[in-house]
Amino acid sequence: MAPRRKKVYEGKAKILYEGTEPGTLVQYFKDDATAFNAQKKAVIEGKGVLNNRLSEFFMNGLTNIGVPNHFIRRINMREQLIRQVEIVPLEVIVRNFAAGSISKRLGLEEGTLLPRPIVEYSFKNDELGDPMVSEEYIIAFGWATQQDLDDIVSLALRVNDFLSGVFYGVGIKLIDFKIEIGRVWDNDFMRLIVADEISPDSCRLWDMKTGQKLDKDVFRRDLGNLTDAYTEVARRLGLMPANTTSLKPTAIN
Amino acid sequence: MAPRRKKVYEGKAKILYEGTEPGTLVQYFKDDATAFNAQKKAVIEGKGVLNNRLSEFFMNGLTNIGVPNHFIRRINMREQLIRQVEIVPLEVIVRNFAAGSISKRLGLEEGTLLPRPIVEYSFKNDELGDPMVSEEYIIAFGWATQQDLDDIVSLALRVNDFLSGVFYGVGIKLIDFKIEIGRVWDNDFMRLIVADEISPDSCRLWDMKTGQKLDKDVFRRDLGNLTDAYTEVARRLGLMPANTTSLKPTAIN
Ligand SMILES: Nc1ncnc2c1ncn2[C@@H]1O[C@H](COP(=O)(O)OP(=O)(O)OP(=O)(O)O)[C@@H](O)[C@H]1O
Ligand SMILES: Nc1ncnc2c1ncn2[C@@H]1O[C@H](COP(=O)(O)OP(=O)(O)OP(=O)(O)O)[C@@H](O)[C@H]1O
Ligand SMILES: [Mg+2]
Ligand SMILES: [Mg+2]
Repeated sequence: MAPRRKKVYEGKAKILYEGTEPGTLVQYFKDDATAFNAQKKAVIEGKGVLNNRLSEFFMNGLTNIGVPNHFIRRINMREQLIRQVEIVPLEVIVRNFAAGSISKRLGLEEGTLLPRPIVEYSFKNDELGDPMVSEEYIIAFGWATQQDLDDIVSLALRVNDFLSGVFYGVGIKLIDFKIEIGRVWDNDFMRLIVADEISPDSCRLWDMKTGQKLDKDVFRRDLGNLTDAYTEVARRLGLMPANTTSLKPTAIN
Repeated sequence: MAPRRKKVYEGKAKILYEGTEPGTLVQYFKDDATAFNAQKKAVIEGKGVLNNRLSEFFMNGLTNIGVPNHFIRRINMREQLIRQVEIVPLEVIVRNFAAGSISKRLGLEEGTLLPRPIVEYSFKNDELGDPMVSEEYIIAFGWATQQDLDDIVSLALRVNDFLSGVFYGVGIKLIDFKIEIGRVWDNDFMRLIVADEISPDSCRLWDMKTGQKLDKDVFRRDLGNLTDAYTEVARRLGLMPANTTSLKPTAIN
């Protein structure tokens, strides 16, 4: 934890500090886990280290295929330098299979293949419990324009194609995930880029053969050791020595 | 090799037989390798088995994300049932990094990152040596319409996002690949789908750390044992037991 830096924001899972250069921030990954709008809480040793490394891995992969995102470089085990954005106040969710809220609302068994990938939105507002909103709402309240939403859907579907591939190659089914999108200005030209994090905190990941959950549902539903699950994801992606079974933070590649 | 089936076409790497149901074909993967428009030839034991399994794996992955393709099911070690299409007479090439012909033509060092993924086309015609053609040529000669090409580019870029992800997750760089596209009619509605094969015969794959080639360039440029290279790709993707080093066809998962 670097000293004497100005804290910009502290959230439930991450802290933002002022970055080293203008227009940048340092994103610090905490070990705190919360669920159900922070009604359930725990400290899970090693989670921050794993999410910092995994988010770096996915964001770098997106950069490789030309999907713009906030990641600049990892600084240390828990911190990464990111480009500061103006966050669009939406959680952008892409679902390939039913799970969680869509299963409840539509009475679909978890794991049911959806007719096609579905993009949906929640309004980022903890007091309201991040309510689901339609494109109509978003445009009417001015959180994003129609043009923004078209760009957001394109970004979200490209992220889905890419992440589906990453996980397919290592025997994991990408059930759904959530991303956040931010605005940046290059000269006077506004662009939308992927921000926040991509990690097992923000994805639902099921082992293809056994159906075992390798994501935050392990914590939400008390299904076992969360760090072990995230370590397994990192291990399959070659981010830890093949023989790692539980987290040894110093062993991260 | 199943007996008494009508051979529809024999190419350099595959044979097509009439399928079991109307509108289907059996695609048989041979061990023959050719390069430089068949001036260089060899039989490489096990290549057909590996490509049959790998093409199944990639096509199934594309099906999962909703990219339409000809694959129906694998029949045995060397054969798969496919939907019969009317092949668009183009090789559709997507390049992420310079290699092969684009390196020669533009004087770019192999491995140079391209400013963005580039889609290009060759006219499928062995006598002419599959010459590169522009969209103007394609439309003028009626091989595809502008609308077809728009759809083909969308398909090709989705395949690129997905395959880039699959290989990124297992430490392989997708330099470029070639697909073929075919027309099918559902009722009277024409659709374009991915056909032919997706395998190390039709991709350039470099190990991310060592730069080692894991594709047909091993054969084209006499860089070692092609079967070992393809086996390594299958092994990383979990299609062979982890301890497999050279091909034991019966060991394929
Ligand atoms: N590149 C960025 N620039 C500015 N803010 C960012 C960037 N990336 C992520 N953020 C914001 O940083 C915060 C990350 O903290 P954390 O995820 O812990 O928040 P949270 O407790 O989940 O609360 P929130 O509901 O705001 O996400 C989020 O508010 C997120 O929107
Ligand atoms: N689903 C399909 N329906 C009909 N034809 C197909 C389908 N998929 C692939 N083909 C065609 O089957 C043939 C496969 O054989 P092979 O790849 O060995 O041919 P080749 O020697 O490379 O010659 P070509 O230049 O025609 O590709 C190709 O001509 C390909 O275009
Ligand atoms: Mg958050
Ligand atoms: Mg061919």
